[in-house]
Amino acid sequence: MDGLVGTGPQMNLLVLEQEEIDRRHRVQLDGARARHLREVLKVERGSEIRVGVVDGPIGAGTVVEIDDTTVTLLCRVEGEAPTPAAVDLLLAVPRPKVLRRLWPQLAALGVGRIILTNAERVERPYFDTHLLLERHWRPLLIEGLQQARDTRLPRVSVHRRFRVLVEDELDGLSDASLRLVADPACETSIPAALGSPPLDARVLLAVGPEGGWNSFELELLRSRGLVPVGLGPRTLRSDTACIALLAIVHEHLRSNTTKR
Amino acid sequence: MDGLVGTGPQMNLLVLEQEEIDRRHRVQLDGARARHLREVLKVERGSEIRVGVVDGPIGAGTVVEIDDTTVTLLCRVEGEAPTPAAVDLLLAVPRPKVLRRLWPQLAALGVGRIILTNAERVERPYFDTHLLLERHWRPLLIEGLQQARDTRLPRVSVHRRFRVLVEDELDGLSDASLRLVADPACETSIPAALGSPPLDARVLLAVGPEGGWNSFELELLRSRGLVPVGLGPRTLRSDTACIALLAIVHEHLRSNTTKR
Repeated sequence: MDGLVGTGPQMNLLVLEQEEIDRRHRVQLDGARARHLREVLKVERGSEIRVGVVDGPIGAGTVVEIDDTTVTLLCRVEGEAPTPAAVDLLLAVPRPKVLRRLWPQLAALGVGRIILTNAERVERPYFDTHLLLERHWRPLLIEGLQQARDTRLPRVSVHRRFRVLVEDELDGLSDASLRLVADPACETSIPAALGSPPLDARVLLAVGPEGGWNSFELELLRSRGLVPVGLGPRTLRSDTACIALLAIVHEHLRSNTTKR
Repeated sequence: MDGLVGTGPQMNLLVLEQEEIDRRHRVQLDGARARHLREVLKVERGSEIRVGVVDGPIGAGTVVEIDDTTVTLLCRVEGEAPTPAAVDLLLAVPRPKVLRRLWPQLAALGVGRIILTNAERVERPYFDTHLLLERHWRPLLIEGLQQARDTRLPRVSVHRRFRVLVEDELDGLSDASLRLVADPACETSIPAALGSPPLDARVLLAVGPEGGWNSFELELLRSRGLVPVGLGPRTLRSDTACIALLAIVHEHLRSNTTKR
């Protein structure tokens, strides 16, 4: 079941919506997914692939029928779903091109919740993009889950009023006790800010727009317990910064909460 | 000179080629760069912007002439160039779309040298892309330098014979004493592998193709002192992995070689 390599996005796990699986535990795939199974994974009748259900367990699927356009799998997915990711992301809405690129990468890196917010330096048209609609972001997040072999779909919410979000809604959205806000001007590193957190620690990470949070926004976030952290003197594009910050947080949690 | 924000790539530093500056320390910009200065940075006669020279120092440029198509700057760039980045990257040539995206991000994150190599799981057509030609990658790397306020252009070389590269050429290309190879199957974290390196430590990081190095390749890299490291159980796309790995290496060097 390994080495599932393609020229497009990798499918290390086929992630299905629950309602795609019928009462006989069968799913009939067509379109891009059937093509991927046939042409990239080169499945045949009897082949077994790794299958998961959105927010559910991971198991196996056996190819029971295959023709020029469809592939039918018999699925056995039982047991526990993977643990939800330990990081929530509060992100100022980036420009659509960047957001498009980020969706699958965020799901692949692992985030429990993606809280998209307005900020002074978010351009108004950014809110008009179809990429903020679930029917557009959901397949992109699933693409990332399939890459990373996860089934836990990040929860997504979009907030046009930064102050209302931070003052009234944030505590209800994220239960993370460790709260960070990326601030390019700050010299404190993420490892220094996080210290040695407990095994079940969750982190909320806030990442601003290109150009950064304004001082009001930064102050409001700090007043809600978000600790400024920086990556050093280099200014990164917001998507690069987002990936870099999430990677460092995950690595720190992994290295400092498991005993080696 | 701050807040140089645009809707396209950011230009936090205008990076010029040495030969663009004439003997009177003037440079006349046209095309995209002139447009960016006029429309995004909204410069006027007398405006000052941050200017650097490829592999040279950083200074200031004053707008001395401006018209509908050109912007002329008087440049004062003297002194020391920034310190070269402490990380070299050995990267299996990714597919062109990924490589296109990676070039500016690698320069922004900071790499001293980019050593592109063949590997079993690199598809042959990947070598035919124009993105391996200097006239195509150079502007993309400069875009990343302009984002990150650096002038040190990564050295780039392309190698079609993996074994010859690793056995005969690698030691001459990178003087890094700390050598890592990303291996998704490995549980050792980067911080654990790097320990507490000396202040002037340099790191060579090897990142394989989608699907990973084959066992011969991994063994050859290990025999040359590259220590396997992993990012945990999630499999990332090669460009996401590249950014994540570089970010973690840089963060570790920053946090463990500066005294706080």
